[in-house]
Amino acid sequence: MKQLQEKIKNEGKVLSNQVLKVDSFLNHQIDAFLMREVGKEFADRFKNDGITKIVTLESSGIAPSVMTALELNVPVVFARKRKSLTLTDQLLTASVYSFTKQEENTIAVSGEHLSSEDRVLVIDDFLANGQAALGLAEIVEQAGASLAGIGIVIEKSFQEGGKILREKGFRVESLARIKSLEKHVVQFLEETEEAAV
Amino acid sequence: MKQLQEKIKNEGKVLSNQVLKVDSFLNHQIDAFLMREVGKEFADRFKNDGITKIVTLESSGIAPSVMTALELNVPVVFARKRKSLTLTDQLLTASVYSFTKQEENTIAVSGEHLSSEDRVLVIDDFLANGQAALGLAEIVEQAGASLAGIGIVIEKSFQEGGKILREKGFRVESLARIKSLEKHVVQFLEETEEAAV
Repeated sequence: MKQLQEKIKNEGKVLSNQVLKVDSFLNHQIDAFLMREVGKEFADRFKNDGITKIVTLESSGIAPSVMTALELNVPVVFARKRKSLTLTDQLLTASVYSFTKQEENTIAVSGEHLSSEDRVLVIDDFLANGQAALGLAEIVEQAGASLAGIGIVIEKSFQEGGKILREKGFRVESLARIKSLEKHVVQFLEETEEAAV
Repeated sequence: MKQLQEKIKNEGKVLSNQVLKVDSFLNHQIDAFLMREVGKEFADRFKNDGITKIVTLESSGIAPSVMTALELNVPVVFARKRKSLTLTDQLLTASVYSFTKQEENTIAVSGEHLSSEDRVLVIDDFLANGQAALGLAEIVEQAGASLAGIGIVIEKSFQEGGKILREKGFRVESLARIKSLEKHVVQFLEETEEAAV
């Protein structure tokens, strides 16, 4: 997605060979118009898949998910990273390790809002090690729902998450795929390369 | 806002005299279409106030905020409830006690994304004790920005938050104001009553 690549090039901050900070439009400040375009792109890629629900993870997954939801005319459910007092019964949970925060979180979705009738699109902001996406996929499976695919705003293709998910047979649609952050330069996978990865 | 009141009546679960659970459209599952209407309503109420930025709190404030942002053509910044490793410099912080979760959180916004030039609309999902809104207002003040007002999706008017904020001189616009949850019935403030509160 060209518009997203441009935004990453212009505003992304490469903190190391591993870490790209996009706090100006996705992870802290949110560019609602860009998120609307992201939503349209996800919707376009999954429009023929009979999606009934979008499942994402708080907090940065919410904006792209609600914009996709507008296009696909389905609800969003966001997994919480820990239990709140008003979210008690029928919890579907998975354990997710965050390398960024160096901590293990339980993520949870209420069984009230995800059922075996659902055909799910999982959306997340970043794909790095794949832990969050795997946790969300596990929750979808626990609900007995079917997973149509995983929509990722930014994939760091040089980390193993994308490979792990695709080897498990999941359909992964990433709107920007980063090949390298070396020498503080963001390099994207070209489309010809994408086909081969 | 009639559409919101209807949704609360039909899907809200009154857990006690104090607690209303709206997990089916706001706090866990999100109704993106209702959020778009919420966004239009906030935008309409603040369209002449020169808003340059929306400030909200993760996670449930994000959906109504991005929809408002589309209408007002401004960015959203969401305060985080604790520091992440990629959010380091120039932090504006406030301490917020959550009665629901019975814990004290530090909420933080990067000074990179909020400046003295900004005219801010604070948006949050619920107004109960007012702690979150006060924390966000404190952060706006620390940035030297001006606060145009506070937009609340659901105000529990029988708790003290609304009174505290209005007595401090803040303009508070709540789209649904709940007078009582007694006997498991949601009662709204009527508009004639609203004027008097």
